[in-house]
Amino acid sequence: MHRTKVRVVEDALDANNTIARANRDDFDRYGVTVLNLMSAPGAGKTTLLERAIGEPLERIRVGVLEGDVQGSIDADRLATLHIPVTQLNTGNGFGGECHLDANMVRSALDQIPLTELDMLIVENVGNLVCPAEFRIGEDARAMVCSLTEGEDKPLKYPLMFRACELVVVNKLDLLPHLDVDLDKLLYNIDAVNPGVRTIECSAKTGEGVDALRAWLAELAHRRLQAVA
Amino acid sequence: MHRTKVRVVEDALDANNTIARANRDDFDRYGVTVLNLMSAPGAGKTTLLERAIGEPLERIRVGVLEGDVQGSIDADRLATLHIPVTQLNTGNGFGGECHLDANMVRSALDQIPLTELDMLIVENVGNLVCPAEFRIGEDARAMVCSLTEGEDKPLKYPLMFRACELVVVNKLDLLPHLDVDLDKLLYNIDAVNPGVRTIECSAKTGEGVDALRAWLAELAHRRLQAVA
Repeated sequence: MHRTKVRVVEDALDANNTIARANRDDFDRYGVTVLNLMSAPGAGKTTLLERAIGEPLERIRVGVLEGDVQGSIDADRLATLHIPVTQLNTGNGFGGECHLDANMVRSALDQIPLTELDMLIVENVGNLVCPAEFRIGEDARAMVCSLTEGEDKPLKYPLMFRACELVVVNKLDLLPHLDVDLDKLLYNIDAVNPGVRTIECSAKTGEGVDALRAWLAELAHRRLQAVA
Repeated sequence: MHRTKVRVVEDALDANNTIARANRDDFDRYGVTVLNLMSAPGAGKTTLLERAIGEPLERIRVGVLEGDVQGSIDADRLATLHIPVTQLNTGNGFGGECHLDANMVRSALDQIPLTELDMLIVENVGNLVCPAEFRIGEDARAMVCSLTEGEDKPLKYPLMFRACELVVVNKLDLLPHLDVDLDKLLYNIDAVNPGVRTIECSAKTGEGVDALRAWLAELAHRRLQAVA
């Protein structure tokens, strides 16, 4: 029985990868760099985006695809930044899924103004497990890890930490009030994903946000360099 | 295609419910009250359990079934309380699932000393979506919601908040340091699950833990009263 289940899972991931490649081809055609941004619920992805792309990021035109089980709270917040924001709910026709997959993203493509963008940031559903398993056609994956979640999360959810090329450690302002060892958290992140880039920041105070902005700009430039 | 997907999901939930009833029959046979405890990653379930059942809970014999994708960090922590703790990993043979289901719990039953317990607390995988969809044969469901996650979580993950008869609002000690409105969080919880019991607490300072202990004791007494 387990073998059947593993086969079904593998088939689903194969089908997902095929659609992810089709998404990627479309993003490439329009020259849009795509970042899949993941985290646990409440780690601060939206507040961080408000900080990081609230002001123009060089000349890079940024849009957001906002994934949620239901509602549009985060999309409404980001829309005040006057950038293109598209809402994608997994509750409508997708069975309330706990993650975005390539097919869901594909279904939203015609609502995203790709011709007007250089970069699309996809804010995934808050979850440290399944979003890491489904490629959506992105160029890069990053995650936000809140200090409040404790230093053991990389060991408990290693697939997520391994899937990303950037781990943003957020809510640094709370460090004095937590029984959390930042060095141990960084050690654990490096233990499951050796050498991965980390940025320590506070979306509240703005500390570290410049480093995130620089990383995003560099990601967009990667595509330009590849084309040149 | 969507209809097929919905059918598959419904069939899976039907199959799960059948196994959940079998689990429930077994728990009933041994007179064990089962609580399914859920939350997002890092909301403080384990620290709260250390506080709440670290000292004897009247004469109620409590054990824990610890659900994790991988590892046994939390089980190792709880084992120091000298209560029976059983580890259940969804990564071994279950495809790294983001939740516990009835079949996984069933597979662990022979490792749980049911004859020595009055209450079994099942610490589910940290996730605000899928754990709410899968019954495991429990008597009651409760969740821990950390203040740090923000006041909008009930609106973004309503199924989870609706599934529970108790919502523990944890990390109250951090309130002075957060841009979170506690009243608004409580309002949102009540909006999606009108009249649901809430307990405000801090696993760190111990504030509110007595109320949680009283609730757990009352849950165990419910069964005794039903039998009498």
